[in-house]
Formats: sequence, C-alpha cells, structure tokens
Amino acid sequence: MSKKNALYAQSGGVTAVINASACGVIETAKQHPQSIGKVYAGNNGILGVLREELIDVSRETPKSIAGLRHTPSAAFGSCRYKLKNIDEHQAEYERLIAVFKAHNIGYFFYNGGGDSQDTTHKIAEFSARANYPVQCIGIPKTIDNDLPLTDNCPGFGSVAKYVAISTREAAFDVASMCASSTKIFVLEVMGRHAGWIAAASSLAAQHDGDAPHIILFPEIAFNREKFLRRVSRCVKKHGYCVIVASEGTQTADGKFLADGGSKDAFGHIQLGGVAPVIANMVKDALGYKYHWAVADYLQRSARHIASKTDVDQAYALGKAAVDFAVAGDNAIMPIIIRGKGKRYSWKIGQAPLADMANTEKMLPRHYISGNGFEVTPAGKAYLAPLILGEDYPPYKNGLPDYVQLKKQQVTKKLKPMKM
Amino acid sequence: MSKKNALYAQSGGVTAVINASACGVIETAKQHPQSIGKVYAGNNGILGVLREELIDVSRETPKSIAGLRHTPSAAFGSCRYKLKNIDEHQAEYERLIAVFKAHNIGYFFYNGGGDSQDTTHKIAEFSARANYPVQCIGIPKTIDNDLPLTDNCPGFGSVAKYVAISTREAAFDVASMCASSTKIFVLEVMGRHAGWIAAASSLAAQHDGDAPHIILFPEIAFNREKFLRRVSRCVKKHGYCVIVASEGTQTADGKFLADGGSKDAFGHIQLGGVAPVIANMVKDALGYKYHWAVADYLQRSARHIASKTDVDQAYALGKAAVDFAVAGDNAIMPIIIRGKGKRYSWKIGQAPLADMANTEKMLPRHYISGNGFEVTPAGKAYLAPLILGEDYPPYKNGLPDYVQLKKQQVTKKLKPMKM
Repeated sequence: MSKKNALYAQSGGVTAVINASACGVIETAKQHPQSIGKVYAGNNGILGVLREELIDVSRETPKSIAGLRHTPSAAFGSCRYKLKNIDEHQAEYERLIAVFKAHNIGYFFYNGGGDSQDTTHKIAEFSARANYPVQCIGIPKTIDNDLPLTDNCPGFGSVAKYVAISTREAAFDVASMCASSTKIFVLEVMGRHAGWIAAASSLAAQHDGDAPHIILFPEIAFNREKFLRRVSRCVKKHGYCVIVASEGTQTADGKFLADGGSKDAFGHIQLGGVAPVIANMVKDALGYKYHWAVADYLQRSARHIASKTDVDQAYALGKAAVDFAVAGDNAIMPIIIRGKGKRYSWKIGQAPLADMANTEKMLPRHYISGNGFEVTPAGKAYLAPLILGEDYPPYKNGLPDYVQLKKQQVTKKLKPMKM
Repeated sequence: MSKKNALYAQSGGVTAVINASACGVIETAKQHPQSIGKVYAGNNGILGVLREELIDVSRETPKSIAGLRHTPSAAFGSCRYKLKNIDEHQAEYERLIAVFKAHNIGYFFYNGGGDSQDTTHKIAEFSARANYPVQCIGIPKTIDNDLPLTDNCPGFGSVAKYVAISTREAAFDVASMCASSTKIFVLEVMGRHAGWIAAASSLAAQHDGDAPHIILFPEIAFNREKFLRRVSRCVKKHGYCVIVASEGTQTADGKFLADGGSKDAFGHIQLGGVAPVIANMVKDALGYKYHWAVADYLQRSARHIASKTDVDQAYALGKAAVDFAVAGDNAIMPIIIRGKGKRYSWKIGQAPLADMANTEKMLPRHYISGNGFEVTPAGKAYLAPLILGEDYPPYKNGLPDYVQLKKQQVTKKLKPMKM
C-alpha cells in the first residue's frame, strides 16, 4: 500500500487514560514514515470528521504529545454522536469517505466504546464498497468495562483504583468518628447497567469487616427491607456502615432509585443521585446520621491517581492499533489478553470488529456474592490486578501539569455538509 | 517538673493530616524521656478521657507510629463532643482531673478546632484551680481554615489541593465533551460558614477562561438572576461552565440553597446537596445538560493526594507542642507563621489560648472579586503555597497502605462516670 495519512478520533465519555492511547497511536505512527504520512485527529471526535475539522497533529510539539500519556479527558475533544445505519443515513458515510479522500486518509483509528466499534466496522465495510478502502482499527475505551472480547477496557482500571482508594479513605474517616457522629456513608459511583465500578470498591477492604459493607449493583434488584436489615446489623457489629451504590441501582420492576423524573435531550432518564435517596432511606428507617458523596466526573477524570497497569495498557493498545494497521490488518480491534499464570500478566491480541456485535459484558453473577451485596473471591481476583501501580503525572505549583493542545486545523477542501 | 505522663486526644471532624500531628507528638515525646513518661491517647477523643479509655501508645510499634504520618482520619478515634462551661457542668472538669491524677498525667495535648482550643484553655485554668496543674497545649486542626492567630490550619492545605485538582480534572472532562454533551458541571465542596475550601478551587485555573468559572461562597448572598446570567455568558463564551459551590451557599435572607432543594424519587427533600439544586436551577432556566458531584468526606480524607506543605506543618505543630510543653509552656497553641519574603516560607510560633476566644477567621472580603464569583490575586497568593508538594503514601496491592492501630487500653483505675 502506498503512503497514506492517518486519522484518529476519540469517542464517547472520556477517561483518565484515553489520551495515553492517543499518545501510543501518534508516537507509533511516527515510527512508520514509509507507510503513514500525516496524522490528523477529528476535532470533537467523529463530528469533527463529518465537519472536516481535522487537527494537524504534526503542529503539536513532541513534548505535548508525550504529555498526553499523563493527561486525562479527550485532548482532541470527544462527542456523543452515533452514526446511524448505512441504510438509514448513507449520506453520513459518503461524507466520511469524501473527507478521507480529500485528505488522502488510508487509516482510521476510532477510540471508543461498543457503539464506536460498531461504527468503525460499518465504515470499514462502506469504504470497501465505495471503492476507497480505508483500514479501520478500533481502539477500546470505556470506564464501564463492558466491551466483549477484551479481558478489560482501558479507563476502567483507573476508575476502579480511584473508587477503591476513595472508599478506603472515606471509611477511615467514618470509622474514626462513628462513636459519636456519622454512622452511615454512601458513595455513589458510575455504572448505569453494569456494576463493574461498584464492584471495584470491594478492593478497599483489607480485613474482615472492613468497608465497603454493602455494595448495590444494577444487576441485583434492590430490596428495601433486606438492605435495611443489613445496614442495621452492620452498624450494630462494626459501629458504622459504608455503602457503595451504582448510579443504576434499581428495584425489581426496573425503576431506578435515583429516577427524579426528568429526561435528558436523548430521552434518557436523568438520574438525580441515588446516594441521597439511600441515605435518607436509612435515616428515615433507622435514624442514623449519614453523609453521602457522588463522585461523578471526578472518578473518570482522576488521572492524578491513575492505575499504572491501565495507563500502560491504554498506550499499548494505541501502539498496537498502528502496528496492526501497518501490517495490513483491517476491521479489527486490539484487545488485552490476560495470562493464565497465578501472577498477573497481559499481552495484546486482536479481535475482528465483526465479533463485537454491540453486546455488553455484564458483571458475571458469580462475581457477586449470594446475598447480592458483596464481591466474591473470583470477582476480586479478576479486579485486583487492574489497579496495580501508580503513574503520577508531573506537578507544577502543586497541581498536575496536564497538556492542552494547540489543535490547529488543516485547511478545509470540501463544502460544508448539511447536518 | 518531675516526670509525668502525657495525654493526647483528637477532636472534631478529621482531616488527611491530623495523624501527622499525632506522629509528631508521639515521636517527639520519646525524645524527652527525662520529662515525659508514657504517652496515652484518648479513645475517641475527649469522650475516651472522660470514660477513662486511655490507649497505651507504647504498645504500638514504631513503624505504626511512623505510618501515622501518611494515614488519614483520626487513628485514635475522634468525637464531636464539646465540654460545657465550667459553671454549667463542673463535674466533667472534675472527672478529667481525676483521670489525669489517676494516670499521673502532666501534659495534655488537644488536637482540634476552635471549640477544642477553647476547651483546652478551660482545662488549663481548671486544673490550676484544682491544684493539679496540667500543662495544656492545643494543636490546631481544621479543614475549615477558620482558626485565628495561625496563618493557616493543618488539614486545609490538603483539602485545598484535592479540590483544586478535582476541579481541574473535571473541567478537562467537561471541556472535551461540551460540543455535543454536558455543558454544566457543579462541584459541591465543604464550608458551611467560610468559603476557604471553595476559594481553593480557584487554583485550578492556569489560563484566562479556565475553570472554575463561578465560585459560590457562603459569604456572598446567592442571587439567582445574577448567577444565571453569568452561567449563560460563560457557556456562550467558553462552551461550558464549571461551578464550585460551598455547601453553605445561601440567599440574602440566610436560607441555605440546599435546604429548599428538590425532592427525590421517594418524595424526600434532599438535604445537604447544594450541587443538584444549582444544577437543576440551570437546567430549568437555560436548558443545559449538567453533571454534578458532591465530594463530601472524600475531600477531607484524601491522603493519597495530600499537600506536602500541609503534612510537614501538621507534623511540625505536633512536634512543637511537645517541645513547648517540655520547655514549660502552658495554655498555648503552636501556630504557623508565614515568612514575609516573596518565596513562601513558614516557621512555628506560639499563641496564648486565651487569645483564641472562639472567633472564626472568615475569608476576607478582599480575597473575593467584586462580582462575588471569583478569587482575587491576593486570595490566590495566600492560597497557592498551601498546596505545594506531594507526599504520597506507600502503596500495597495498588492501594495506600494506611495504618490501623491496636489501640490497647490501659487498666481503668476509677469508677465509671455517669454521663
């Protein structure tokens, strides 16, 4: 294949390490000057590609690019925008091909979750049909850890580490005050459909009886009476009770506890905070003084305490995406494969995007204890290695020195698309 | 003075560094074997002293004591319990003296906020009157930074650092998604009466236009229209708006915003959540998609990202308390004195507890901008040095290796007090 330019785009909710994948892509592309010319990045993800807003990565300094490895969020901008099916909206796919052609793009790297990988696959198919074949490589990313095929998803390990540390720290706080003050602490974490993040809080416990004492998973129907009985028993036994609740905690009839009744622009229910609901429920029924926290974006942007394992994997996936592309692969996604040994190890493999098929990997039932409130040893064994290692960013004036890019766009060559 | 035992107690809401002061007290006391015999600690603060629950610190290993320097919360337990005035409840003071006598205690170190320092002062006076003079030394501690006399309070610098970092990280997240998703992010921080913690978020900004764009202080009456106008302008200019709100944000008539809040799915009023109230207010008036976070205990227990300056000062204050006591001082509190040079420096001094007089040091008005939403250069100049330096705890299995003490109590010698 003759020398072509590469296009990289970030998609969906951001993470502490998606820029580490970007760093892997960009630094590795430079090592293949015989195959890859310029590297462009979509401004705000695929929207920027449709709008022909292409950031010229070569205008950034090597130091800035290296700094992406320790910078959270999406340095090129991300978006929540799902391409429709080709039959429904072929114009969008044609537009992408037009942009690819106009800028001599032969490689497309799409860094996102399940929906994005589905899109990557469709673009690969369409570009072949349109007689402008582009090598399309997906790079996995999601804090939700719900992608199939890969052992785990970059972004998740760092959220898991943040949540486990925060749970341990808050538990120390409550334990030291509970004799005369707060007895209940509720930490709300992300996870609308899958309880992976909530499950990670289980790593906070060192000894029997340590927090978290109760984990509420979206996978387990919330039962008020059973829950309150357990809270009461816990306070009687330990003097306090730390509860970690998934934002998606719901009752057997599928009603979110946090459902405040409002919906967002996409028609999704806007969840109003399950932590205060739980805390008030305990107060009303048992009278205990409570505190609650909602970590929200803090958990997925907490690059200051990212998992080194997570950062290394995110970079390696970005690197592998380019290496695979240069080797001629198409419509695949590099994945993480866990070694079978007792000591944790991992390597990079690949999976066809055709196999992704929009499935979500839920927390397996055998990772949740029989009572529905804890994580089993099998679950902990899966989770524990993902938070290993610290990878501190550099600091300046007491704050992490994160990179902000220039994001200079190349000159447009096409007429604007009607969107 | 002949050799006497020392008693140390922790009081009030805990911090990321109060144990560093404990470490300073205990390690320094060991260096004065000619003056100080055993070191005891009140189990759960002053309540433990009243109940004659005295922890024998010599039963802990030197390694555990050293580990207190990097362990958040109150390792000996704390409490919210304020001794009444001597006239109102003399029995409590008599009980304290009885416990002091029974265990040959000649030094009392009380590690807490304004109320506790007031108590320390009263105990010093009462013990002199009761003919069992105990040297009473206060050690300042409060995340609220509202103690007079000292330049700053240990505990505050670490919360400040956590809040500034979290604000920067969340702002990166929102900025990278705002083109097609969330435009408003509200972070609620502690501070019911004073806006010191909210003010610290201002350090997150590096460049003009950086987050936080709006800070809500308890000191500034909340004006809905003025606030919404600023939010709207900010989104138009920057594409997003990051708001940091003190939990004590209130209207001109003294009504907390959190008190008149929205109701959850169960119809309960959500107490203590100013962030969702603000977020919903913006959504209702301007229609922007929002996210909000409530840091709560996470901010004051976040030892994983403590300020090194804060840790060093907390330790130095504990050390100085013992050194002053051994030198014969009484009814004083070691304080932090800021150097006058351009480059930040500090040293330890002391102030009489009589001068504390239960006053709170509020955020000076000239630290808040004229529009009431920002921190002035003078305010930033005061705050900036307090977050300098990182002091990472050791890690084990990907988590901070915090110390849990044995807390073995000495044999009681007195009859229980009726409380």
